Amino acid sequence: MGHEVVDIATKLSHFSDLWSPKVVGRLNDYEIKVVKVQGEFVWHTHEETDELFLVVHGELTIQLRDGDVVLRPGQLFVVPRGVEHCPIADGEVHALLIELVGVINTGNAGGELTAAYDDSLL
Amino acid sequence: MGHEVVDIATKLSHFSDLWSPKVVGRLNDYEIKVVKVQGEFVWHTHEETDELFLVVHGELTIQLRDGDVVLRPGQLFVVPRGVEHCPIADGEVHALLIELVGVINTGNAGGELTAAYDDSLL
Repeated sequence: MGHEVVDIATKLSHFSDLWSPKVVGRLNDYEIKVVKVQGEFVWHTHEETDELFLVVHGELTIQLRDGDVVLRPGQLFVVPRGVEHCPIADGEVHALLIELVGVINTGNAGGELTAAYDDSLL
Repeated sequence: MGHEVVDIATKLSHFSDLWSPKVVGRLNDYEIKVVKVQGEFVWHTHEETDELFLVVHGELTIQLRDGDVVLRPGQLFVVPRGVEHCPIADGEVHALLIELVGVINTGNAGGELTAAYDDSLL
């Protein structure tokens, strides 16, 4: 098996669906994912784990109950475990996520935006 | 306490020392660090954990015993636990690292390049 370099832009060029994170790498029991988002997600919480967002394209707002966090390319934010949040973006945003294996994108909220596990880009 | 956005370039503008990772964020029991490197590091292994490198400036070669991995801006690589590696860069490289809390930069090798823990940018 070779040693795979993950080129983030190339991985993002392989899909266009929104709110559907794709696994591109693993770090111990964490997964590195890329995702495209636009519009508003659902308010949800991950009770068991922090979640890292790193924006590579566009401007992402992460709504929190006590204020908004705005992320532009080259900026990252860690949503602490147990903190309710809701991403929203006017334009299309491309981001890198780092999450514990098994995390569901909609957390405790569920619903139609719950994405299937997708490691087809791995 | 506010919700801190980490601007990677701004964090990197605050220091110039080489091979001395600075903690800029935390994700559960992991630390997000920025580092500047140039020249050759030491061959070493982290027996207990994988290690993520994401290059944001310059070109980084991670030498492995069975071949080199070359990373350019926007590219990442996870060195698997137990795999001996030695970063090397002709020019200055700026990178983001994600590592388990407590990881020593020189792993099992030790020596003069072993960096003190630095969370002054947190």
